[in-house]
Amino acid sequence: MTQQAVRPTAPAALERIRALVEPAAQRAVDWLDDPQMRLISRYQMGWCDAQGEPTHSGGKAIRPTLAVLSAEAVIGRPDEAIPMAIAVELVHNFSLLHDDVMDRDLERRHRPTAWVAFGEGQAILAGTAMLTLAVRLLTASGLSGRRAQGCLLDTVQVLIGGQSQDLLLEQAESVTMAQVLSMEAGKTAALLACSASIGALAVGAPEPTVAGLAQFGYELGLAFQLVDDVLGVVGDPAQTGKSSSSDVRAGKRSAPIAAALTSNTPAGDRLAEMFTAGPPATDADVELATQLIIDSGGLDWAKNEADLRLDTAMQQLRALDLIDEPAAELEAIANYIVNRDR
Amino acid sequence: MTQQAVRPTAPAALERIRALVEPAAQRAVDWLDDPQMRLISRYQMGWCDAQGEPTHSGGKAIRPTLAVLSAEAVIGRPDEAIPMAIAVELVHNFSLLHDDVMDRDLERRHRPTAWVAFGEGQAILAGTAMLTLAVRLLTASGLSGRRAQGCLLDTVQVLIGGQSQDLLLEQAESVTMAQVLSMEAGKTAALLACSASIGALAVGAPEPTVAGLAQFGYELGLAFQLVDDVLGVVGDPAQTGKSSSSDVRAGKRSAPIAAALTSNTPAGDRLAEMFTAGPPATDADVELATQLIIDSGGLDWAKNEADLRLDTAMQQLRALDLIDEPAAELEAIANYIVNRDR
Repeated sequence: MTQQAVRPTAPAALERIRALVEPAAQRAVDWLDDPQMRLISRYQMGWCDAQGEPTHSGGKAIRPTLAVLSAEAVIGRPDEAIPMAIAVELVHNFSLLHDDVMDRDLERRHRPTAWVAFGEGQAILAGTAMLTLAVRLLTASGLSGRRAQGCLLDTVQVLIGGQSQDLLLEQAESVTMAQVLSMEAGKTAALLACSASIGALAVGAPEPTVAGLAQFGYELGLAFQLVDDVLGVVGDPAQTGKSSSSDVRAGKRSAPIAAALTSNTPAGDRLAEMFTAGPPATDADVELATQLIIDSGGLDWAKNEADLRLDTAMQQLRALDLIDEPAAELEAIANYIVNRDR
Repeated sequence: MTQQAVRPTAPAALERIRALVEPAAQRAVDWLDDPQMRLISRYQMGWCDAQGEPTHSGGKAIRPTLAVLSAEAVIGRPDEAIPMAIAVELVHNFSLLHDDVMDRDLERRHRPTAWVAFGEGQAILAGTAMLTLAVRLLTASGLSGRRAQGCLLDTVQVLIGGQSQDLLLEQAESVTMAQVLSMEAGKTAALLACSASIGALAVGAPEPTVAGLAQFGYELGLAFQLVDDVLGVVGDPAQTGKSSSSDVRAGKRSAPIAAALTSNTPAGDRLAEMFTAGPPATDADVELATQLIIDSGGLDWAKNEADLRLDTAMQQLRALDLIDEPAAELEAIANYIVNRDR
């Protein structure tokens, strides 16, 4: 009972829209002619194991849900937004897959990452195949696809730039909060902005509505990333599917860690000193570093910033002239993804 | 003088079309907002060194030349084909860049490969940025871009499948000629087929003309790859920019090597025996393996097959109703790239 009180129930829209999108997404991935590329893509989407046997271990499908809701909020129907919903989920999975190769991450969603299961080269190829398929879907979607394509492609460039900054920051001697937030905006907020507006864009919504939905998605994306960063410091491994304090262990410069390092507190200074020698080497060091991030106020800063970003997102949304029910569903999704596990 | 007699002069079309395409290509790469992605892309295109200082060490730009000629052969003007020409060159460089990471190749065009110069993660990201930019260019090119987009995207999937097969064949115990030719068709012929027809497609040429040009490009691409394979066995390092017998050294299953291995000759059998222990370890082993590929007839088979494919390509081309001068230039390009260094 306590568990349920802490973890909010998933909004009904997630399941409703998954039922609309997933069968079409499966058919779209079947467009991939190469059997190896199809297998790895299906594995990455959570639809099968490494031998191709059906499983279900996909993500929450937040991005396709936002894409469909953004069309429903404008014209009351989901249909034309379905290729866009599939496209944003494919792009999300392309970036997860490539990032896992670069970050040498071994597990995702409680399974070996694609490069561990299939080899690095095959994983890189499959990620690019999923990206190319995402764009191809829009090419095949007539006028609505054409309206959406520039947005999707420009977002991919921002995602790529965000990951590039992330890799550069990992090697940097010191980082500023501005650098970290810009990197996180690129890696997370940009695709949420695209997801939350691409359906509206596809159905030909007026420009201010599309821009407002994109701003809602952008602020929501930052809030979402900040919560993810908090979980990377103090999250429960059973819930996150990662090791405890995974970002601390990896020596990442996530927002709460950067906030701790730049806090001008004794705890922050001690953390900076620890980090000059590289990521914490032992479990005891990881525990100490985690405590220093808490003591310096870095964790609270990130939680507070996430709340502020969520408030801003909600204000953006409420300022728009949208159909009531899907607009309420967008709010429910926003609350759900930012408040999970806190 | 002998040198000039052996190495044919580059057709004038290469320089003429480079002057049309390259300034526009430079402007297109400047669309990349991220400075690191822009730098690596410019490096990969041969326009600068790793510090960003201007250089000129790009490739022959065969693909953009074919793309422009395919439009000129239909409507007599190059203009509308220029974004397509840039797009095929960007896609070519995306695939070179990613393949170099996967194949751990250290040098290309007499310089360190991008992943050696900038790191593996940054190189993967820049490759994907170039691919995304290629598609974005077509999205920004109105009706002609829309006509061309499906062709480009489908070709990218074939390229990806070809590289995936290549990686799988490297680990295979034995390979058939059919597998090797299918892999080479995917890695090389598909993008040449696209390049030789995308300009015609973009300007709205009749379907049989587009298909005929694609078939010309496909056969030319196979011939081109077979010649490249021959150079990978007996090419001059000063001309190829690679080590001597580079494919033999790497234990690749290129067409002449596969032909040797499946030749049922004593030399072929001895080569197969050598290869069971992995790629040749010493220079003497490389020399012996190279001689066995020659003695088994594998090298002659590949040279002969290249000639046959070039003949077929020319027949395809001559069967089409094209404008004389650009059609003659297409023939000159085809002869040039297949006969280089032989």
